[in-house]
Amino acid sequence: MTIRKAKSKEEVIHALHTVAAEMHDKMMKGKPPAMTLPVRTKTNITFDKKLQVYKYGKNVSTRDATSLGSARVLLRSLHITEFIEQMINSGKSSTLREMYYISEGWGNGKFGTQNESNNLAEDLEIVTKCIREDFKLRPEEDGARIIGNVTFEEKNRKGEWMRINCRDDVGDSGYGVPYNVEAEKLKLVDQDIDFVMAVETGGMFDRLVENGFDEEARCALIHLKGQPARSTRRIMKRMSDEWNKPILVFADCDPWSFRIFASIAYGAIKTAHISEYLATSDATYLGITADDILAYDLPSDDLTKSDLGALQSELSDPRFATGWWKEQINLMQEIGKKAEQQSLAKYGLDFVTDTYLPEKLGALGLNY
Amino acid sequence: MTIRKAKSKEEVIHALHTVAAEMHDKMMKGKPPAMTLPVRTKTNITFDKKLQVYKYGKNVSTRDATSLGSARVLLRSLHITEFIEQMINSGKSSTLREMYYISEGWGNGKFGTQNESNNLAEDLEIVTKCIREDFKLRPEEDGARIIGNVTFEEKNRKGEWMRINCRDDVGDSGYGVPYNVEAEKLKLVDQDIDFVMAVETGGMFDRLVENGFDEEARCALIHLKGQPARSTRRIMKRMSDEWNKPILVFADCDPWSFRIFASIAYGAIKTAHISEYLATSDATYLGITADDILAYDLPSDDLTKSDLGALQSELSDPRFATGWWKEQINLMQEIGKKAEQQSLAKYGLDFVTDTYLPEKLGALGLNY
Repeated sequence: MTIRKAKSKEEVIHALHTVAAEMHDKMMKGKPPAMTLPVRTKTNITFDKKLQVYKYGKNVSTRDATSLGSARVLLRSLHITEFIEQMINSGKSSTLREMYYISEGWGNGKFGTQNESNNLAEDLEIVTKCIREDFKLRPEEDGARIIGNVTFEEKNRKGEWMRINCRDDVGDSGYGVPYNVEAEKLKLVDQDIDFVMAVETGGMFDRLVENGFDEEARCALIHLKGQPARSTRRIMKRMSDEWNKPILVFADCDPWSFRIFASIAYGAIKTAHISEYLATSDATYLGITADDILAYDLPSDDLTKSDLGALQSELSDPRFATGWWKEQINLMQEIGKKAEQQSLAKYGLDFVTDTYLPEKLGALGLNY
Repeated sequence: MTIRKAKSKEEVIHALHTVAAEMHDKMMKGKPPAMTLPVRTKTNITFDKKLQVYKYGKNVSTRDATSLGSARVLLRSLHITEFIEQMINSGKSSTLREMYYISEGWGNGKFGTQNESNNLAEDLEIVTKCIREDFKLRPEEDGARIIGNVTFEEKNRKGEWMRINCRDDVGDSGYGVPYNVEAEKLKLVDQDIDFVMAVETGGMFDRLVENGFDEEARCALIHLKGQPARSTRRIMKRMSDEWNKPILVFADCDPWSFRIFASIAYGAIKTAHISEYLATSDATYLGITADDILAYDLPSDDLTKSDLGALQSELSDPRFATGWWKEQINLMQEIGKKAEQQSLAKYGLDFVTDTYLPEKLGALGLNY
């Protein structure tokens, strides 16, 4: 279990200063300043047996100031360090987009694209062993919505802890997960559930809520909103660790939804350096499976060329290197079809909660 | 002021039965059944001086069963009528996507694409003078988030009214607006604000929240999430009508954001039949304006070909037929630039609340 102890302001600032100090020391010795980073591509991901998640392998690349491009990266790192320190001291946070615009004032350190600034923020996470939330940087996307009998305490803007039960204290839209769900901001205080079900689409989330599935099946429902935000993956990980509840993923049957599952269970390539905080290795893919398309005769669409390409690339993705996934992917390639969660509505609005989910959960030994 | 009285179940079912009855009567007289609808394109939108919003004009098209295509539309209308009646009687609702899949069981009435089923749902709104919320049909997209000192009562799944203050009872993510914000589901009970500010991007919404702008400027902040959902436009309209508060729109400076404003203020082509419920005709576009790009020397991007096409088409859109909009659009064409809200971060994270908004609001006579 990996309950992450939040880093103090001082620890984060110290970690950033270390990066600057290393550059300074090298220069004082007459050497070009440098930063060493793991290579962040699919070929450099390995399975960490102890942590049960994918992590970066041993390949590293060194950025030193002997080329203009690398020198610029180091300059930008120093500007970011200063910016983050200012935010920490003034109690602010910033979107990654805002940081990109703020670099307008950094002269030669100005970013050309937001992709560059996002990547550098991730690089700094690796070098400092901090996380983006420590840096007070946040993404644009919204976090998940949660409905069910679970209670959180969230520290609000005024520094007060607010107690929110995700069944009794929220409207139909549910509890909106904030961007920072570390212990300094969010506490998991109470629950009366048997499992957590993460749901890909808003339409299906609302269906399960309307049908009272959270109460009937004693579960917390999480709306993933497509590819889940870091905060969404992190809160599932915490619910798994701190409450010891199974995490089930209910998604469309298409290659992109499989990637959503993989990022929840094994981590994503871009965040493999913090997989142990984000990835819930015992998450289970519940459906829709390729088997389900056949077994339930679901309305389906033909796989597009881009779908087929994605499936093929998943066959060489270490996160899908299990017998079960290979079977599912091969079956999809064979039938050439994909299907949405909401296609279960073919059999009426209650079919998903009266028939499909009880059958699928029963097969996992989760009867209700 | 147009506070809409919610239609009772019986009224909605009666209105739908009337459609079926008309078809039945025609057939009994030996005539082909028919349905008459306004033409729903830009050329058939006119400005309603009394309501101060855009409405469909006088052009109508008749669907009668003398062609296979039209006969299919009438058959589908009857299937939808039956489906809606079942939902109303069993206290259910459905996404538009679910209805599309449910039509799998309608034989010749099965929809080819979801666009067809969405359009027919809107057609039925027009014919019956009901709204989609009366039909218990809802979109996939999420509604807005609101933060500020306003209090709503929302009727939850169990039929209980919950009181929620959007400053004190919610986390940082704010209050999530449900899909149905009619009086039967949501009451506007209390407020202590001077105006409402609708914000296009999540990054800027979070910036204003973090900077405490809602408290300092005594306003409610609404995150539009791009092109606003019907429920978002409706709740703004109700806040304008029932609380008599100015609605200000703060968006990116690009042709697509101008359309977001137009749909808030004057209604959208697809929903012109219910503009008086959705459109807030005295909403004000606060910025970012083309003037602002120059006045604040904002980081900007070149207009793309598709941006230029959109701007050109706005010059012939009746919703932009004012001197002020024509000036802004012409200026954009002249400078060939667009800019994002978050580009204000060029001057630091507080510039938007310390300088930009006070200056813009001051020009409107809203000092704080």
